[in-house]
Amino acid sequence: MATRSMSRWETSIAEVVSDGDREEIIIRGHQLDDLIGKLSFAEMMFLMLQSRLPTAAETHVLDALLVASVEHGIAPPSMVARCYASYGTSLPAAVGAGISAFGDKMGGLGEQMGRMMVERLVGHNDDVADDDLQTIAAQVVTDYRRNNERVPGYGIPLHNKDPRAPRTLEVAIREGCFKRYCRFAMILEQEIAIARDGRAVPMNLDGVSACVALDLGFDWRTIRMFLLTARSVSMGAHYLEEQAQDTTWRHAKADTILYSEPT
Amino acid sequence: MATRSMSRWETSIAEVVSDGDREEIIIRGHQLDDLIGKLSFAEMMFLMLQSRLPTAAETHVLDALLVASVEHGIAPPSMVARCYASYGTSLPAAVGAGISAFGDKMGGLGEQMGRMMVERLVGHNDDVADDDLQTIAAQVVTDYRRNNERVPGYGIPLHNKDPRAPRTLEVAIREGCFKRYCRFAMILEQEIAIARDGRAVPMNLDGVSACVALDLGFDWRTIRMFLLTARSVSMGAHYLEEQAQDTTWRHAKADTILYSEPT
Amino acid sequence: MATRSMSRWETSIAEVVSDGDREEIIIRGHQLDDLIGKLSFAEMMFLMLQSRLPTAAETHVLDALLVASVEHGIAPPSMVARCYASYGTSLPAAVGAGISAFGDKMGGLGEQMGRMMVERLVGHNDDVADDDLQTIAAQVVTDYRRNNERVPGYGIPLHNKDPRAPRTLEVAIREGCFKRYCRFAMILEQEIAIARDGRAVPMNLDGVSACVALDLGFDWRTIRMFLLTARSVSMGAHYLEEQAQDTTWRHAKADTILYSEPT
Amino acid sequence: MATRSMSRWETSIAEVVSDGDREEIIIRGHQLDDLIGKLSFAEMMFLMLQSRLPTAAETHVLDALLVASVEHGIAPPSMVARCYASYGTSLPAAVGAGISAFGDKMGGLGEQMGRMMVERLVGHNDDVADDDLQTIAAQVVTDYRRNNERVPGYGIPLHNKDPRAPRTLEVAIREGCFKRYCRFAMILEQEIAIARDGRAVPMNLDGVSACVALDLGFDWRTIRMFLLTARSVSMGAHYLEEQAQDTTWRHAKADTILYSEPT
Repeated sequence: MATRSMSRWETSIAEVVSDGDREEIIIRGHQLDDLIGKLSFAEMMFLMLQSRLPTAAETHVLDALLVASVEHGIAPPSMVARCYASYGTSLPAAVGAGISAFGDKMGGLGEQMGRMMVERLVGHNDDVADDDLQTIAAQVVTDYRRNNERVPGYGIPLHNKDPRAPRTLEVAIREGCFKRYCRFAMILEQEIAIARDGRAVPMNLDGVSACVALDLGFDWRTIRMFLLTARSVSMGAHYLEEQAQDTTWRHAKADTILYSEPT
Repeated sequence: MATRSMSRWETSIAEVVSDGDREEIIIRGHQLDDLIGKLSFAEMMFLMLQSRLPTAAETHVLDALLVASVEHGIAPPSMVARCYASYGTSLPAAVGAGISAFGDKMGGLGEQMGRMMVERLVGHNDDVADDDLQTIAAQVVTDYRRNNERVPGYGIPLHNKDPRAPRTLEVAIREGCFKRYCRFAMILEQEIAIARDGRAVPMNLDGVSACVALDLGFDWRTIRMFLLTARSVSMGAHYLEEQAQDTTWRHAKADTILYSEPT
Repeated sequence: MATRSMSRWETSIAEVVSDGDREEIIIRGHQLDDLIGKLSFAEMMFLMLQSRLPTAAETHVLDALLVASVEHGIAPPSMVARCYASYGTSLPAAVGAGISAFGDKMGGLGEQMGRMMVERLVGHNDDVADDDLQTIAAQVVTDYRRNNERVPGYGIPLHNKDPRAPRTLEVAIREGCFKRYCRFAMILEQEIAIARDGRAVPMNLDGVSACVALDLGFDWRTIRMFLLTARSVSMGAHYLEEQAQDTTWRHAKADTILYSEPT
Repeated sequence: MATRSMSRWETSIAEVVSDGDREEIIIRGHQLDDLIGKLSFAEMMFLMLQSRLPTAAETHVLDALLVASVEHGIAPPSMVARCYASYGTSLPAAVGAGISAFGDKMGGLGEQMGRMMVERLVGHNDDVADDDLQTIAAQVVTDYRRNNERVPGYGIPLHNKDPRAPRTLEVAIREGCFKRYCRFAMILEQEIAIARDGRAVPMNLDGVSACVALDLGFDWRTIRMFLLTARSVSMGAHYLEEQAQDTTWRHAKADTILYSEPT
């Protein structure tokens, strides 16, 4: 751990060159000029976070995950963005506040699930047998239940099942990117149901983000980025729609507030 | 202008359905299940903000713009994100703060330029003649100089020229998306140089975002989104790199601070 | 306007000294050690923003303004803070998002009113006659009406009148701090009513913040600080109350959302 | 844990009444009108967070803590605020981002220390003997060292000792508010030094916030508020100073950045 001055930075992400002759931006070893017009956004995001270019199949899966993550209607972060519009606050502040709303209970469970899966599958590669995954999954379920906690990545408030997970997994299968983490996540879903006497708690968007991202080679620490980046589009769209509706003071009506006496 | 309760929302962006039989997310009239695995992220972003799907050419240009916008090294917003990592703050808070750093001088000029272009080209379509664009551009330059202001979208601190603009415009030309706003922006660049006795102030990323987005049919109010969404990737990458460097207290060293007596 | 490196800072607010012998923090020319235990928070805030210590009377008025500004129930910024608590987001992120929610329509009107008053009263001191203030006020009302705008600082959504303004002005009168800006703000209130055939639009918290702060000698650019700092307490209190209520997913119920077809 | 609609809120903090006859804001059971002009800001903050009014002595100690926390020069959060000013971002966004910068390593250690002290002193009241506190403190030091962690609330980067802690504790002693948590914190400081062969790690601002706040009766969850609220003043002051300096693009100079090859 190092106390470091703001006058010393070190990065391998990008080099910005500006001298008499050269005006260059070099990203992960590539001239940006060579990437513009050649890469899609998903390929660029992959390059930024993994320092290598994805295959076409990997790109398709990442695009599927990002598309699945873009929008979820009048949901909490888009409501924050809409409120900001209503109060005459700027678009960047609104998008920023919507993004920073994601916390441990909302949007953060994919990272927790990803970390847990990485820790539990240490020493295994994609050749791991289903039986082994099942043994590990059963242990995970047991451990969480013993701590009276829910396995992260499954279940969704307000829905019976999250429609985004199965479709994204189908794309991963189609593209040959359904590997040990996706397999493990599916087996975990089964084990959770078994432990609940058959009542399923289907995988949610957090969960599918975790297993798909890990099978694409991403570090578990990056898992939240796919939601944050994708959902920023939603916050912008909702901000602009609310602004066009010209509301001025989003508020809770008095009759929705219960005032309890101070104790 | 309407004071509106938080108990009444109206949107045409997305409908989330969850009842006994149906679990559906409908975005801009499309089943999300039909979009996952079919659309790229750029196509989805286009759909979200314009309510229609782009052509392949439009998608290529939007991808080029997003790729050009993703990363600019140790720049102010990524530094904010890195500082947050150094202080043990969460990733979403870091990305949120980096995004909300964009203001009127940084990242906001594309919107200003876009709005100005829309207002100045009112009544013109893509058939407008170069001569007419030149007359309008000369007037714009005169007006801004009279107010002692700079035309937004041109020039960049720390660089002689912004290498991202010309390459993005090449892609727009290649894909047949170089229309009246791109043409106008190029002619404006010439008029600015003429007014400065030939000293060029090349178009920057803000500028190319504005003209390219308008020629793709986006509302000028959405122009900042391409930077905010794309750059969120940068903030995540820098946050994670700083975290891996395990710094703990980014600060300004005492000898970089000049303490002036209170007046 | 100066491009400035992050390696060069200049400040007259505080000097932090740490060398072998000395460990000192000097704020606006005072040793912090001499201020701790001697100043109240309001005196310290006054010193920070004006570089001088207030009189007892000025302190009482500033305290009154801050107390008036601390809390307004389940209002938009405290709702944002409560939502963050509900999503498992951190307290600092919640307070930060609540503060950054304040925009042009909410919390920003005091600054606009303050700036307008400073500009309109240029050349006048506290000896200005009521008649002159009335002439200027009538002109202000005329000018805003001509632009189809409301004079900032008057009226409040959801209330008939803002109960916080009259009480704070009483304190200013009691403490001898009711000077040209408070007088002007009261006369403006009268002129607004006259222009509306007697229907009053009473001064609100924004308005009283503006005139009281100016009469205390604050720059108009600081006016929003009294709300931001004071209200941060509210955001913390609401965050903690919501956290104690253990809610987990604040959301809008489906039946409060109207989905309109995309156009 | 309860999923709760945004159409149902419950609070005992404040009731806002606005009907034909009454315009009232009732805070923790008090009419706001009765508090304006009577309470100081610190008293109001105390009321908000503890639902009771403080004694004069308690108010003096809280004021001391807030004054100690207001400003620390060109420190990370004020730098973020100054950068925002430099980029043309709004004051509320700047203050908000400065506040949300506080994380686990910066500004969050007081809460951790407070929680630890509450847990370790369970079952003890202010009559606890010094010997007992010493036994518990020695165990705390042992436990943290075994986990290879530092006891939160002691030591400060860039300083030999934090000058704010001893002075604030003096005020607590003077006012008769130096009770079991302050005593415990002092004894902990001694035990830390003993475990390091006499090399002291003096209590810092986080530490003194924790023990002083607990001895004032605050819940450990509120400890960060004293820093967040107080420091918001600093962020405003630095924002306004930077804005007056008219900088336009705070950045890291190229020669302060080391570009390492992607691995």
